[in-house]
Amino acid sequence: MTDIPARSSFDPTCLVNGVPASQVSAHDRGLAYGDGLFETMRVSAGRAPLDEYHFSRLEFGASCLHLPLNMPEIRAEISGVAAQLNEGVIKLIVTRGEGKRGYASVEVPRVTRIVQTSSLPIYPPDRAERGVVLYPCETRLAIQPRLAGVKHLNRLEQILARGEWQDDAFGEGLVCDMRGRPIECTMSNLFLRGENGWVTPQISDCGVRGVMRDYLVSQLTSAGETVDQRSVTMQELMDSSEMFCCNSVFGVWPIVGLKDRKWPVGPFTRVAQAMAQQVFM
Amino acid sequence: MTDIPARSSFDPTCLVNGVPASQVSAHDRGLAYGDGLFETMRVSAGRAPLDEYHFSRLEFGASCLHLPLNMPEIRAEISGVAAQLNEGVIKLIVTRGEGKRGYASVEVPRVTRIVQTSSLPIYPPDRAERGVVLYPCETRLAIQPRLAGVKHLNRLEQILARGEWQDDAFGEGLVCDMRGRPIECTMSNLFLRGENGWVTPQISDCGVRGVMRDYLVSQLTSAGETVDQRSVTMQELMDSSEMFCCNSVFGVWPIVGLKDRKWPVGPFTRVAQAMAQQVFM
Repeated sequence: MTDIPARSSFDPTCLVNGVPASQVSAHDRGLAYGDGLFETMRVSAGRAPLDEYHFSRLEFGASCLHLPLNMPEIRAEISGVAAQLNEGVIKLIVTRGEGKRGYASVEVPRVTRIVQTSSLPIYPPDRAERGVVLYPCETRLAIQPRLAGVKHLNRLEQILARGEWQDDAFGEGLVCDMRGRPIECTMSNLFLRGENGWVTPQISDCGVRGVMRDYLVSQLTSAGETVDQRSVTMQELMDSSEMFCCNSVFGVWPIVGLKDRKWPVGPFTRVAQAMAQQVFM
Repeated sequence: MTDIPARSSFDPTCLVNGVPASQVSAHDRGLAYGDGLFETMRVSAGRAPLDEYHFSRLEFGASCLHLPLNMPEIRAEISGVAAQLNEGVIKLIVTRGEGKRGYASVEVPRVTRIVQTSSLPIYPPDRAERGVVLYPCETRLAIQPRLAGVKHLNRLEQILARGEWQDDAFGEGLVCDMRGRPIECTMSNLFLRGENGWVTPQISDCGVRGVMRDYLVSQLTSAGETVDQRSVTMQELMDSSEMFCCNSVFGVWPIVGLKDRKWPVGPFTRVAQAMAQQVFM
């Protein structure tokens, strides 16, 4: 048997409710109100290794938005598309479907399901190796416990924050909440090393409960590390001995600078980075 | 010359970038992130009488989101569609257009412009006559000054609030902010009558700067009334002698009940209601 080349990750798929399509209804509530959820899943060797974490967050979001999802259908589709894609990224969007004008929803909405694929984003490789400098975003995250943790389609705060810098010298941006507490980066979560181990800001008032964050909390804890999920102050962040940001696409990037402060890429960060890398081996 | 019947308002239009279409790209940032704005304009006798208020709010929103809008093009299109529609509602959506994955925007986005028409919503006529009872929503509006006033596409808070009641006995829902201050209703703004005249909650921390609100502030002030735009407490609201909610589609609805409190439909409310009605005469 000859080697069959993997399907090119530059041949993107877009499925709308399971059917190849490049468009959605102009009356979809996802467009009208951001009334839906999304997941961005890295695919490696024909599968999405963190799929259970993604599906768990998706179900959490669906319960917050009262969105009836057909999870077996979603799981089957993701697994089929992942097998075809082989390597790359799947973006899944679910919305409350078509609606008339007005915020009220029909009792049993017909969910729109969109599955898009893309190749792995190409980041400068030294971000993982040498680490990133954070841009200190002025945009604050509003306190909204009813939507905290959910990866929903209302992302204007992230867009405002990400729009604050263009200089590639900054690999990510630090975002605080309205009370000035560090919460996350624009597209990743934050871990900082304190005297008693790792601390990651709690995601109870705002922020996205990142899949890689949840995975690392679980893995680090299993490895005997302490990982506190709690409120963090800016001073505590500046006083930390190591820091990294993480998401389910790039894994772990060490953080080596913020304003005047510099950090080394520390040994504990390398352990977390290796854990993240192993997921996609 | 014989009477030409007005074009039926049940023959809905949908234009995407000026072309009749029912769909938009599945990669549009309006869908992906709610990255855009909208306006809902009532059309009467072939024109949108409050169009200048709508365009002013749209430009304000575009400046907040750094969205480059071609206003002459938008104005021309709205005025053409309004002439065709004659009576009904135009919904205009503008988004940051197609994008790749990720929150960062291209430097000069190609805005997507969607214009949809519908017939006037049919509300029970006694809402305007006898007034509405408000449902006391538990969903709170998050404090986010950077987006306050803007009619953007991130509307999950309104959807959660509107989803709290199904009973038609409630014509609208009162929504407070995270500090418990009354801000607006789910789809309309709020005016309450205090000892010194009208008060309407300020829209500086959250909430939508409604077009009918702005219009009535201007008209009532011109008529010699005092209209304070400031922070309001729940106690002050309960102590008010009259109250109404307003938007640019239904005009003014008197508020006659909230929890155990009942209000009469007061004479000052009827004045404001007449002002709103005159717009669409």
